[in-house]
Amino acid sequence: MELGKKTWAIAEGYIPAWSHGPEPQMTSHEAACLLNASDRDAHVEIMIYFSDREPVGPYKITVGARRTKHIRFNNLTDPEPVPVDTDYASVIRSDVPIVVQHTRLDSRQDANALISTIAYTE
Amino acid sequence: MELGKKTWAIAEGYIPAWSHGPEPQMTSHEAACLLNASDRDAHVEIMIYFSDREPVGPYKITVGARRTKHIRFNNLTDPEPVPVDTDYASVIRSDVPIVVQHTRLDSRQDANALISTIAYTE
Amino acid sequence: MELGKKTWAIAEGYIPAWSHGPEPQMTSHEAACLLNASDRDAHVEIMIYFSDREPVGPYKITVGARRTKHIRFNNLTDPEPVPVDTDYASVIRSDVPIVVQHTRLDSRQDANALISTIAYTE
Amino acid sequence: MELGKKTWAIAEGYIPAWSHGPEPQMTSHEAACLLNASDRDAHVEIMIYFSDREPVGPYKITVGARRTKHIRFNNLTDPEPVPVDTDYASVIRSDVPIVVQHTRLDSRQDANALISTIAYTE
Repeated sequence: MELGKKTWAIAEGYIPAWSHGPEPQMTSHEAACLLNASDRDAHVEIMIYFSDREPVGPYKITVGARRTKHIRFNNLTDPEPVPVDTDYASVIRSDVPIVVQHTRLDSRQDANALISTIAYTE
Repeated sequence: MELGKKTWAIAEGYIPAWSHGPEPQMTSHEAACLLNASDRDAHVEIMIYFSDREPVGPYKITVGARRTKHIRFNNLTDPEPVPVDTDYASVIRSDVPIVVQHTRLDSRQDANALISTIAYTE
Repeated sequence: MELGKKTWAIAEGYIPAWSHGPEPQMTSHEAACLLNASDRDAHVEIMIYFSDREPVGPYKITVGARRTKHIRFNNLTDPEPVPVDTDYASVIRSDVPIVVQHTRLDSRQDANALISTIAYTE
Repeated sequence: MELGKKTWAIAEGYIPAWSHGPEPQMTSHEAACLLNASDRDAHVEIMIYFSDREPVGPYKITVGARRTKHIRFNNLTDPEPVPVDTDYASVIRSDVPIVVQHTRLDSRQDANALISTIAYTE
């Protein structure tokens, strides 16, 4: 079964610079949740866009056939870490159709806040 | 009246492992809100995808004609409960067009957080 | 200028039963934000769907040409109030194209939570 | 690479009137996050719609080639500031394809709340 699209974008990117509460669940983070419902592994490349310099990437990720992977941008390191407290955006491309949803947990204050939205696709 | 689509996906799935506040309203939970605006009952099947094992399902649900049903993933038990504190994703199929929206209430800290997004459809 | 669609759906509907903080800003509420960017008044009808009874409506609203109107479901009274602490869903139809976004403010606990998503359209 | 669309709308607009926590990160604000993945600068115009008066604008913004810009509505001043504690909506047009996501941080109470959704496009 194939489901989804090969190109996705998340225009809102921001990793809060501090956290409040037990790790790793309550650590402030931003995630791209990838679903690969197909029967082939998905080879995914993420490009990160900034406000004041050229894009960085690709960050390469494999999502196995019939698997989901929730990527924390905080954990991306190659080619370089994604800076905190910095506006960014991302474009996500895959060689098989996938579905992408964007989520952030912000635990900077006493109680955490959450956002989530389906990403843009075309 | 028919409204919606027959195939939907929610790439972000995660049931917080603990809660804070009166049950059942403030219990941490994740929901798929299904709207069947048609004049026929909708027979819905949900498959749950994981990061490290094969998908589980289908979970079978009927949404009556001209009814909405807000399914808490916490309450799904057949063929097996959805584990808490675990990344998952879901694909939702119906035999009549429906509309699907994803919501989570996270009450792990003193004040609850909420997310909601229209699901992906094609 | 015409922008948007004539049919929209919000599968997630729920008005929290209590609030915390100064009224009216911090009163728990659910809203459909309607944008009519056209040069003609939009005549809008909202139908409310429930889990266990027939739909109620239409609730009739006019959004002037080149105006936005943020409808609090809490404030709908004709043909009947929308019950609190009850799952519902809504279908919104307009005679001119509009854009619909769904928002909830939940102030049941010490700090408020918010959700928002673009509604489903076709 | 071109990605996105030239016309976007955000039906929900509201800047909370007060804040709680360190500036500028925790200042209540509303943002349109714009991603221009193309190789040409994007010339963007924002029109603001109100419930009780004619639209205001255009607010003009340039997003460089291969750049993202997270616009805080709070910071728009020309032709006039966007009022706080007031319902509004926005239409965003660009001469090259872009992607638009809507976000609000609400820090009126002790802990912040967040919303985000992909904007409407056609």
